[in-house]
Amino acid sequence: MTTLTLPDARALAAAAMTACGHSTADAETIADHLLDCELRGLSFGGLARALSITERIRSTEVPQQPIRVVAETPVSATVDGGDQVGYLVGMRVLQLAMAKARAQGIAVVGARNTWYTGMFSYYLEKAAEAGLAGMIAGSAPALVAPHGGTEARFGTNPIAFGFPATPHPVIWDIGTSAVMYGEVTLKARLGEKLAPGQAYDAAGVPTLDPAAALEGAFGVWGAHKGSGLALVVQLLGMMTGAAADPPGVSDCGFFAVLFDPRALTDPDDYRQRVTAFAESVRATRPVEGGSPVRVPFDGSVTRRDEALRRGTIDVPEAVVDALHQEAGGA
Amino acid sequence: MTTLTLPDARALAAAAMTACGHSTADAETIADHLLDCELRGLSFGGLARALSITERIRSTEVPQQPIRVVAETPVSATVDGGDQVGYLVGMRVLQLAMAKARAQGIAVVGARNTWYTGMFSYYLEKAAEAGLAGMIAGSAPALVAPHGGTEARFGTNPIAFGFPATPHPVIWDIGTSAVMYGEVTLKARLGEKLAPGQAYDAAGVPTLDPAAALEGAFGVWGAHKGSGLALVVQLLGMMTGAAADPPGVSDCGFFAVLFDPRALTDPDDYRQRVTAFAESVRATRPVEGGSPVRVPFDGSVTRRDEALRRGTIDVPEAVVDALHQEAGGA
Repeated sequence: MTTLTLPDARALAAAAMTACGHSTADAETIADHLLDCELRGLSFGGLARALSITERIRSTEVPQQPIRVVAETPVSATVDGGDQVGYLVGMRVLQLAMAKARAQGIAVVGARNTWYTGMFSYYLEKAAEAGLAGMIAGSAPALVAPHGGTEARFGTNPIAFGFPATPHPVIWDIGTSAVMYGEVTLKARLGEKLAPGQAYDAAGVPTLDPAAALEGAFGVWGAHKGSGLALVVQLLGMMTGAAADPPGVSDCGFFAVLFDPRALTDPDDYRQRVTAFAESVRATRPVEGGSPVRVPFDGSVTRRDEALRRGTIDVPEAVVDALHQEAGGA
Repeated sequence: MTTLTLPDARALAAAAMTACGHSTADAETIADHLLDCELRGLSFGGLARALSITERIRSTEVPQQPIRVVAETPVSATVDGGDQVGYLVGMRVLQLAMAKARAQGIAVVGARNTWYTGMFSYYLEKAAEAGLAGMIAGSAPALVAPHGGTEARFGTNPIAFGFPATPHPVIWDIGTSAVMYGEVTLKARLGEKLAPGQAYDAAGVPTLDPAAALEGAFGVWGAHKGSGLALVVQLLGMMTGAAADPPGVSDCGFFAVLFDPRALTDPDDYRQRVTAFAESVRATRPVEGGSPVRVPFDGSVTRRDEALRRGTIDVPEAVVDALHQEAGGA
């Protein structure tokens, strides 16, 4: 591991993003998102992801197009991501949805033709800081079998909801697959086995082999109820015009709805009630021998606060070296 | 069991609803919802529920008020249910949300001060028939412990999403508790045991005794991910102004968002793509020895089609007798 100061880590990610063709502003937008993943302890979506982005851009022959709003009303917009990375498209969607929701009370904005949309909690935290609640759902390439099936139909299809609260928002952000894509590829690289029930091989036989799982299908989270939620996310993503089974890491659907609580109730009172309710959940008597009950996003905030106090993050040396090379530096 | 023709069953439910003070039109609205539960094989929400409604109305001293829209914009409305039964309040919310979503592309309508809001799929099916997609979430009295806790914080908190498709919509409609309230009360009545992991007693000790569970807390569905979803539903319900822990079966929050797919994409193309995707899910190769993969709402439609062909439903004799008594008839 290499220990990097936060400014150095951010600058390194931004330099790699500039080197593969992004403007300085866009490179910093992507670097901020990647750094937030690192701070929150989600390193699979952190600096290592910058390498996947540069690879993806280099391996795509069709040039990227500008992000364009192709349809718009006062409460909705459809965005064509122009095959740009989702961190940029997601921020454009967020800005459109926030402006519309603040003006009208609610807004829905969808984007297609994009890839790697990042942590949905990243966007929802910004919305919540502006007093908005919201939902984001994202469809992705078929990797996951429906409950009772053995062939991939759904993406790993994340869905997230966020709510303004003090001192930090309540944000629930999950994937609907039994195992994360990054977890499977990592285990394949390390020669480790999957847990039972997490995957099928190409013939539909349950497998513990991550390489076989990548040729077959992952299981879905939450049995038949979770399978239904994965389907819901796919259909929401398709409402953006994204394909049902996007080819490669392209044409993911990114579907965002933001609410201004003011549309329905007193927003200050609502924030106070959400805060008090979150506190009452944390104060629930735990199961015997258990640790205190946590509210979604509490763990991320704790880890991020620690990292900010420390002022550094640890990143695998190979990732740091490769990023320096990408950035054209030492 | 007593076998009733469908018109007789509907008339009996409507007569009981009229007898406890509803107008003819309102009584028929409630009867239609209850009958649809019976047709779909969800008898715990069917004619027996009419008895719970009459009991609830008789046991409440404060008189019911008219359903009122207390705040409204072109894309939103807040409804005070006036302590009327949720079947009526839900239909008012649906009508408001459908009109607004068709006119504007998206709408959010919330209701508070109501109880027994019925099957959310009932409302979403009507929205889908009009070409609208949507989400409904409902908060309810605290009965369910968060994951890792042993005290009730959440309601059984249903959430549902619906999408227009041919020949029938895709509708996912789940409760976020490990066990349904009606299931626990039924097992208490029959002297049966709960399954392990479904409940805690008042002291926080895991219990199989349904009576003890009713004094304590139910478990939540889906471990920490499911617990987060239950919290999301509670916070959406609270956005209507409903209390976090509604006293008794009152002040449930009913939160509905409808989307006109036209706001984001071509609606006919979307319906075709949803239909084709649902077909591809049904055609997924099943697990070895498994039955065909089903899409949410398929089972309800199959059971309802069978009941409509048969033209009758079977209802416990005690329920039929009690309803006749309520209706003031034979």
